[in-house]
Amino acid sequence: MIYFAVLRYVGTAFCGFQVQRGRRTVQGVLNEAAASLFGCPCLITGCSRTDSGVHAERFCLTLEPTEETAARVPPAALPRAILPYLPPDVSLTFAAQAPGGFHARYAVLKKEYRYRLRFGGMPDPFLVGRVWQQPYPLGEAAYQRMCEVTPHFVGKHDFSAFMCTDAKVTDTVREIFSLTLTREGNEACLSVSGNGFLYNMVRIIAGTLFEVAMGKRSAEEIPAILKSRDRCRAGMTAPPDGLYLHDVIYKPPFQKLLFGE
Amino acid sequence: MIYFAVLRYVGTAFCGFQVQRGRRTVQGVLNEAAASLFGCPCLITGCSRTDSGVHAERFCLTLEPTEETAARVPPAALPRAILPYLPPDVSLTFAAQAPGGFHARYAVLKKEYRYRLRFGGMPDPFLVGRVWQQPYPLGEAAYQRMCEVTPHFVGKHDFSAFMCTDAKVTDTVREIFSLTLTREGNEACLSVSGNGFLYNMVRIIAGTLFEVAMGKRSAEEIPAILKSRDRCRAGMTAPPDGLYLHDVIYKPPFQKLLFGE
Repeated sequence: MIYFAVLRYVGTAFCGFQVQRGRRTVQGVLNEAAASLFGCPCLITGCSRTDSGVHAERFCLTLEPTEETAARVPPAALPRAILPYLPPDVSLTFAAQAPGGFHARYAVLKKEYRYRLRFGGMPDPFLVGRVWQQPYPLGEAAYQRMCEVTPHFVGKHDFSAFMCTDAKVTDTVREIFSLTLTREGNEACLSVSGNGFLYNMVRIIAGTLFEVAMGKRSAEEIPAILKSRDRCRAGMTAPPDGLYLHDVIYKPPFQKLLFGE
Repeated sequence: MIYFAVLRYVGTAFCGFQVQRGRRTVQGVLNEAAASLFGCPCLITGCSRTDSGVHAERFCLTLEPTEETAARVPPAALPRAILPYLPPDVSLTFAAQAPGGFHARYAVLKKEYRYRLRFGGMPDPFLVGRVWQQPYPLGEAAYQRMCEVTPHFVGKHDFSAFMCTDAKVTDTVREIFSLTLTREGNEACLSVSGNGFLYNMVRIIAGTLFEVAMGKRSAEEIPAILKSRDRCRAGMTAPPDGLYLHDVIYKPPFQKLLFGE
């Protein structure tokens, strides 16, 4: 049996999703929990990676016990069954049997990230690690400037300028389906949906938007920055605190098979 | 100069507000921060105590440097000035000069607490330590039963039955001005305003309300439980996680002198 599962986690105390020797990762604690529950090692395939400190509201994965002797757990019972083995900063919110031919990463149609920025006021202890908190207030004009930037990112672009220089990918073209800003009081929230994202891409877009709000950059510069493919021309990398993997949508027929939507 | 200040803190990693030797308390870290900033010990008087794990959205206090040589900090600059000396789970959100004759505890007119309960679903990692999370769903009938209980607590009562038996107070009469429940999805929020609260009083009221939701108690029992003054007859003590000191209102003329309201 291959399980499909949705995970929710606070990224603050994790060195990202992917297993790394000697570091606390989401995959690492899930590996241990699944091995305890099933009585054998399990193969886990995530929909994506997330960086150190980045959160997930809906992270999708498959989980496959590797031995015939594995304990039998009905898919719908998996979230409650594995709960006692998981630390409080991770929770499994949904599970089903994975459909035949499904791959948690290759079958992704689109992913949606959210980035939360808070402007002005004293830092709020309840938002530490969960929002990028800035002491500078966000005037209406500054917010409008940020909104003017957003359309420039939408569409198919080479996002090399918005990729961490450590990354070693060769195909740097990604399509952004939508990128919108909303505001509630002194908090702005960026929602980005796309077919894939380069390493640190959302955080560099968020950092660039912040610099636009601060008046250090203008909306008109963005097309030239994209064209340059030069990381040095884009804005700073915003901290992981404000970043959430918000949702993952799978290609047909998988989305419907998994969620009935 | 005596400063009046408003504090906001996440209680999870604190053994309550009040200083205790060898334990991390809010007053303890504030004492250290103030001593570093002013260059001398400071006298801190809080509006209340809070238990281990209990949060505060607006905790009021006075702070007085004890030596003539203390660094001079204008009251409005205190929140930013002390920030570098405070850990991230505490923040000072407002400061002013304390009016003559003001006492942070004795001048309190009313205090408002909130208690957050979440019903059903898998535990949400983002709410760990901040909401009392229950696996049992909250049906509309159960919520209505909880709402029927609330009027019984309003008014002047001897709340002995709703006080931790360890408490050593003799005057156990308190007045509750209002007690209301609201619901948003699977979360219920209790708001209680009163002239004072006994040790664990709000948590025992929350625990009793929870038992009413679960069908273990009925609204009609509450007057008899109050009359009995017997702690054994009231419900369980709800965990500190869901409890917030939401606001403190001072007697005239202090409220207006402090906040201009």
